[in-house]
Amino acid sequence: MIHSFLMIGQSNMAGRGFLQEVSPIHDEKIKMLRNGRWQTMSEPINCDRSTSGISLAASFASSWRLFHNQEDDIALIPCADGGTSLDDWSIEGPLFHNAVFQAKAAQKISTLSGILWHQGENDSNGKKHQSYIEKFALLIKTLREELHVPHIPLIVGGLGDFLQYGMYGQYFNEHHEVSKVLLEFAQNHDNCYFASAEALTANPDNIHFDAVSQRKFGIRYFKAFQQKAHILGTVKDEDKIIEQINNRPLTKNEKSELLQYQFAMGTISADEFQNQFAEINKGS
Amino acid sequence: MIHSFLMIGQSNMAGRGFLQEVSPIHDEKIKMLRNGRWQTMSEPINCDRSTSGISLAASFASSWRLFHNQEDDIALIPCADGGTSLDDWSIEGPLFHNAVFQAKAAQKISTLSGILWHQGENDSNGKKHQSYIEKFALLIKTLREELHVPHIPLIVGGLGDFLQYGMYGQYFNEHHEVSKVLLEFAQNHDNCYFASAEALTANPDNIHFDAVSQRKFGIRYFKAFQQKAHILGTVKDEDKIIEQINNRPLTKNEKSELLQYQFAMGTISADEFQNQFAEINKGS
Repeated sequence: MIHSFLMIGQSNMAGRGFLQEVSPIHDEKIKMLRNGRWQTMSEPINCDRSTSGISLAASFASSWRLFHNQEDDIALIPCADGGTSLDDWSIEGPLFHNAVFQAKAAQKISTLSGILWHQGENDSNGKKHQSYIEKFALLIKTLREELHVPHIPLIVGGLGDFLQYGMYGQYFNEHHEVSKVLLEFAQNHDNCYFASAEALTANPDNIHFDAVSQRKFGIRYFKAFQQKAHILGTVKDEDKIIEQINNRPLTKNEKSELLQYQFAMGTISADEFQNQFAEINKGS
Repeated sequence: MIHSFLMIGQSNMAGRGFLQEVSPIHDEKIKMLRNGRWQTMSEPINCDRSTSGISLAASFASSWRLFHNQEDDIALIPCADGGTSLDDWSIEGPLFHNAVFQAKAAQKISTLSGILWHQGENDSNGKKHQSYIEKFALLIKTLREELHVPHIPLIVGGLGDFLQYGMYGQYFNEHHEVSKVLLEFAQNHDNCYFASAEALTANPDNIHFDAVSQRKFGIRYFKAFQQKAHILGTVKDEDKIIEQINNRPLTKNEKSELLQYQFAMGTISADEFQNQFAEINKGS
């Protein structure tokens, strides 16, 4: 069985963590949607911009795998788009249409099991938070209706505490208010859970969660999903869970895929490929 | 006005040229579709796999810009998917559905002006070339009908001469036959033109056109489109055109976007960003 999760929101859902700052996640039972079909997940998952990087979705999926039976697959549907406001996600707009199309494509080949939302930086000024709940409720209601999943869990996350400190800080002067309405929304809507961004840190731009923080955030999103509860601060064992994820031994398939990648990228020769491939598959 | 082009086929349309082997193309008037909206083009355009890289689409767009009025924009709709056979592109399948959805999304915000196809490696054995023309004709006829563009130009390209020499050469032993049927198809169908892959070279895998060759191939696709003619060999001035593309001076916007990229990626500080930004926009 494949359980799929829709990723929607703006850049911090798409992910801007630097790839080189964390251990890569290779797990053949984590998939991502590409052109209507599943592929083995690799980061960046959500290629909306040239700056795409580590998002919370990979560690969300990895922690789901740790706490779920080992037969099932988890799959990610990347539809987040950098720099988008809540109004950009209007149900008449292209982002919403695209997300519905992609989720429906995924529903043909999986069970849609959750919606992951992170957005709000672009609504962090000009009192936009005052209409956030109403607009967001319509978006989620319509999305659930269109996809025929009235009770599907929705996980939303708080905004980074660092937002006011950067070069663009003036544009985010109401980020606390946006985090507050996201929590309020979760508290007042069925099947909606909040994940705190407490103590998470940023890239040098002070806009985007760094890669290490995205890994932690993914675990908090997962805990909210698993426990059907709001996660109001750091998760005690998040570092330990990341360690567990990083220490997972690779399967033969995963080793072979990595080898194929290296060969395709020209970093190992055909001979090296064949030798290492034989080594991996020895005795099988 | 925005003229858009649909990219379909397998990995050599998606592009696997190594990014570091050619000069990047920055042109604010070349766009790519992301989540139903246009973004400034950056490579890789078609992020179907972790190995995505330079495709023919960027230099196709750049040469279109050289020979077109400077007011119009060109936009790319990436829907190619690595390792796919012609059967995978069946009109009932997910790849076709996705391409139709993406092209329709683009049609809301542009004039769909051409279809770029490169595929056939996965049909280069087992006599699959014998049914290629019939299957491909149905695919193209249906695509043109669904998009309401009955006369839209279609450009197809030949397969690499190197295919038989690699580690996977045995799977491509009929690639000459596939190239032949692609040419035959173009010769016998209205508004369809062929671009030769003559003398193009490969990555070390001997499967994928290298980045330099993809740049040349894009120019051949453009010449076929511009001249409404089959390009049966190398294009005489392709190196000169690439030089022209590489020597195009950046606009202020392009310089600012590059600077923003560097800042987002943490390679320049906020101070450096602000100094250089002021320098770029001096006097404006």
